[in-house]
Amino acid sequence: MTWTSIPVTRVADGIERQMVHGERLMVCRLRLAPHVVTPVHSHPHAQFTIVERGRVRFTVDGADRIVSAGDVLHFPSNLPHGATMLDEEVVLVDIFSPIREDFLIPEVPCHAPD
Amino acid sequence: MTWTSIPVTRVADGIERQMVHGERLMVCRLRLAPHVVTPVHSHPHAQFTIVERGRVRFTVDGADRIVSAGDVLHFPSNLPHGATMLDEEVVLVDIFSPIREDFLIPEVPCHAPD
Repeated sequence: MTWTSIPVTRVADGIERQMVHGERLMVCRLRLAPHVVTPVHSHPHAQFTIVERGRVRFTVDGADRIVSAGDVLHFPSNLPHGATMLDEEVVLVDIFSPIREDFLIPEVPCHAPD
Repeated sequence: MTWTSIPVTRVADGIERQMVHGERLMVCRLRLAPHVVTPVHSHPHAQFTIVERGRVRFTVDGADRIVSAGDVLHFPSNLPHGATMLDEEVVLVDIFSPIREDFLIPEVPCHAPD
């Protein structure tokens, strides 16, 4: 499969998500508009995030850092994390295990992939 | 952390690997020279592979397909898979759960990241 063939879902204002998963792993590709904020949250799922494009201020366990393409972040189970997109569109690849069952509610693609 | 700061290990002729992992997830970034072959193999670990650069002929469960940047492959537990790099250098991101304990033997970086 290719990202261009995977349905795109608008999950919030300025946040589009594509996802693939098996039984143990889930990979989500997120496109986020400039200045979008994902509030600090945590979950029992282990997560890595790869920054593909753009610049982001992450808050991880209370500390801020700015990351950009080539950065990789690890959020162990239940570690609080949140993010603020800076002045450009951001593309992130989020990896989870176990899969985010909460992401699997029925979704309606907002548009064909571009 | 950033890929440029993560040690690079030469794991075979023409194959350099960087890796990060937690308790449940492992993410490896592989740089493979043109024409390198990774023979068909399988493992109980679930795997996704994201193609970041280059073109690769994958053999998955006996069927061949050619993939390139933007493609994502899923190898469920124990699914036989192998790959042949085509005429360009290839960069792959391999994601595993559980982590590949067999990759965690002591390693000597072959050179500083570039």
